[in-house]
Amino acid sequence: MGEALWTDFYQLNMMYAHFRRGSHETPAVFDVFFRRLPCEAGFGVFAGLEAVLDWLEAAHFTDEELGYLAEVGGYDRAFLEYLRGIRFRGTVWAVPEGTPVFPHEPLLRIEAPIGEAHWVETAILAYINHQTLIATKAARIVHAAGDDPVLEFGLRRSHGPEAGVYAARAAYIAGAQATSNVEAGRRFGIPVVGTHAHAFVQSFPDERAAFDAFLAAFPDQAILLVDTYDVLRSGLPNAIEAFRAHFARLGRRPARYGVRIDSGDLAYLSKAARAMLDAAGFSDAIVVASGDLDETIIRDLKVQGARIDAWGVGTELVTGGDCGALGAVYKLSAIREGDRWVPKLKVSENPLKINDPGVKKVVRFYDRDRGEALADVILLEEEPLPEGPYEIFHPIYTMKRKTLRNYETRLLLEPVMVGGRRLHPPPSAEAVRRYHLSERERFAPEVRRLVYPHEYPVDLSLPLWELKQRLVREQGGRG
Amino acid sequence: MGEALWTDFYQLNMMYAHFRRGSHETPAVFDVFFRRLPCEAGFGVFAGLEAVLDWLEAAHFTDEELGYLAEVGGYDRAFLEYLRGIRFRGTVWAVPEGTPVFPHEPLLRIEAPIGEAHWVETAILAYINHQTLIATKAARIVHAAGDDPVLEFGLRRSHGPEAGVYAARAAYIAGAQATSNVEAGRRFGIPVVGTHAHAFVQSFPDERAAFDAFLAAFPDQAILLVDTYDVLRSGLPNAIEAFRAHFARLGRRPARYGVRIDSGDLAYLSKAARAMLDAAGFSDAIVVASGDLDETIIRDLKVQGARIDAWGVGTELVTGGDCGALGAVYKLSAIREGDRWVPKLKVSENPLKINDPGVKKVVRFYDRDRGEALADVILLEEEPLPEGPYEIFHPIYTMKRKTLRNYETRLLLEPVMVGGRRLHPPPSAEAVRRYHLSERERFAPEVRRLVYPHEYPVDLSLPLWELKQRLVREQGGRG
Repeated sequence: MGEALWTDFYQLNMMYAHFRRGSHETPAVFDVFFRRLPCEAGFGVFAGLEAVLDWLEAAHFTDEELGYLAEVGGYDRAFLEYLRGIRFRGTVWAVPEGTPVFPHEPLLRIEAPIGEAHWVETAILAYINHQTLIATKAARIVHAAGDDPVLEFGLRRSHGPEAGVYAARAAYIAGAQATSNVEAGRRFGIPVVGTHAHAFVQSFPDERAAFDAFLAAFPDQAILLVDTYDVLRSGLPNAIEAFRAHFARLGRRPARYGVRIDSGDLAYLSKAARAMLDAAGFSDAIVVASGDLDETIIRDLKVQGARIDAWGVGTELVTGGDCGALGAVYKLSAIREGDRWVPKLKVSENPLKINDPGVKKVVRFYDRDRGEALADVILLEEEPLPEGPYEIFHPIYTMKRKTLRNYETRLLLEPVMVGGRRLHPPPSAEAVRRYHLSERERFAPEVRRLVYPHEYPVDLSLPLWELKQRLVREQGGRG
Repeated sequence: MGEALWTDFYQLNMMYAHFRRGSHETPAVFDVFFRRLPCEAGFGVFAGLEAVLDWLEAAHFTDEELGYLAEVGGYDRAFLEYLRGIRFRGTVWAVPEGTPVFPHEPLLRIEAPIGEAHWVETAILAYINHQTLIATKAARIVHAAGDDPVLEFGLRRSHGPEAGVYAARAAYIAGAQATSNVEAGRRFGIPVVGTHAHAFVQSFPDERAAFDAFLAAFPDQAILLVDTYDVLRSGLPNAIEAFRAHFARLGRRPARYGVRIDSGDLAYLSKAARAMLDAAGFSDAIVVASGDLDETIIRDLKVQGARIDAWGVGTELVTGGDCGALGAVYKLSAIREGDRWVPKLKVSENPLKINDPGVKKVVRFYDRDRGEALADVILLEEEPLPEGPYEIFHPIYTMKRKTLRNYETRLLLEPVMVGGRRLHPPPSAEAVRRYHLSERERFAPEVRRLVYPHEYPVDLSLPLWELKQRLVREQGGRG
């Protein structure tokens, strides 16, 4: 850790321009949010916060890094001395990891001297954009798999091993049950799983010998890969014979055993494999499937009655697949002048790109009886928490209105760092996962649907909406 | 470095199964190759090798890691002792980074005791898959930009900061001219560029004040971002006035100055900006464009006569965009029995998925007069280098034949590591880039086309083709 140069050159240049005129310590507030959910998902799953906080606590410039900047930056000596001493001393509010999140709502709110705030933007966005993308994709895959476990197998297709470790964590907190990624297992306590590859089978004179060797090494957890030669003509018969011999030696059946199919038509092969295993008396054997799976294929295989007990998902999960990239941004929303915060707004020809100005909070409303999440509303920090009947309205189609009653509220943004230090030790990945699974249950099935989900409302309070309108008018924008 | 657990759990399990029966030291040969180019590109750009070699030299198990494996692996003491001492001692042949590469040809050939070979598979694939994907995408973007520089701006959308650093390197070796990524600049000597963001402008009372402050800090390299409020009504007029005042103070014009446009219709705005700059006497000012660009948009903007001098590309470049993921695999091709290599092949219902067996080399044929690359042919290692008329044939549509004459040959796979140590120090990123740009010129324009490129031939020698046919028949495959 401590990689202070994980930033864009323009951040350092802006810091320098502020430093030269003495405005680098001006307090500023930046919001992190995204404008669109990847792959038209009904909700996103917020992830990446713990990596951000780790980095913010550790980041500082080394002599070598300063030497490099002295060469390329065209900076003066005083600025390099400022960088030598710089640490992130700001305050961070954040939505807890694992929270279902939606476009436009602030996921992090960063208050810091503007120089520091510029410095940390890029790394914050890289962590949040990556991990929230993967967690969002993973939630879709977990949804498609229903009650079946999803196993994350994607390290080899990750954007480098370190990206793979964080992808495994993101997948886990979004509901995957285990990972093949050993470092993710060690670092985050995620259950690790793994059997063997085709090369293992090929390195033996024949398939049966490979299966016997594997069962000898792992008498109590044996998932055999049966598609090295031919699933039905070779793999299954050999696996069944190997299981028989092994169980006879063992004098019992292991708690978990079965086969993995990594190619071919998984609907057809899994049904045939199930039938062969059942006929051999191995109805407790499980069938694991893998091979270029994603939520669409899993759903289709289930529709076709595939007999698959666990789903190994790799490439599509750890790259985001058709979800592409998450485009979270980091926008200035207020700047300190004397004793007050001046709200800031960037106009744009595209009204959706105009940010919400001012220091803000996010309130999630839940039905008091059913517990269901009803809406999120973004308010100015100084507004009181809603109580009693509360009218929400669509920020663009303002005629769409609804009055909320009999609700509970929760502030989504919580303080997590003050003066550059964490307020709490990081939660375990398992605790984040548990929180995610319970919070996700509070959203209507219509919001969680994979295709054309219902749009969950994220509205602005009337005071925030009015402030935004006024600032757009004042800046002459056409938004 | 030294992250020995950047691997899949099944690799360790296979190592254990081999270790228990004493076969973990059996020499084996694995090939790394991909079966399909991402986004139907005409060629791939090989990248990731230097990261692989760094990791192979450094990787080893720490006490903490062994403690974790003792907990979760169910391994015996002797195996953990074996892991404690393990280092990669294998031999690696590789295509040089920056080489245009094609489906099915080995990019790396790894010869190592099978235990070690399993251990290192996952990290090798993660590095190669990531960096080759990004370099391939970058080459497409550079192609679309023609003679204009491409600037890599994607760190914030990378899969974490470390993925962003390697993405910047991959983009650079494929022809990008510079990066915004400061750590990539320091680590790999890539030129860094950067101006300022909208937030910088917003943090000033007005746009002109922000421009003046920026020019004061960077008198000799001033690209002003002109779309914070309104490009034509505010940004350009303010930039022109600020330039005028600045140049008057400076008594000259800086070597490089201009404007950046990050939103709106880039064709319309760039033409209008060019006209305004020219009318103000600033025909040497450059126009930089950024904002969700990729090769398709760049090409279209150029077709429409956009007046853009440099292209800042982020998200689509560092994530691969529509190129998705590269699916390079690591397949056993030979195993040592006594004093000979036994070729290995994995059959599959999909004939394209059957690997090429045996210890192999790759020969690239160039026209002796024109220097143009004609074809790549995969041969068995023991075959002599082709000389004189040489007939190549398509490995599937074998009636497609052609005789090569008057050619030069080059072996693409070179030894880069012996006994786990590099044979050469790593080349500079700049040298790799120079090599890439010159090697790419040797391919016909038809191969380099963005859409429906001509398929460059990658064939098998007759002895290799015959060996493959024989092994498929022996294994009863239908391939």
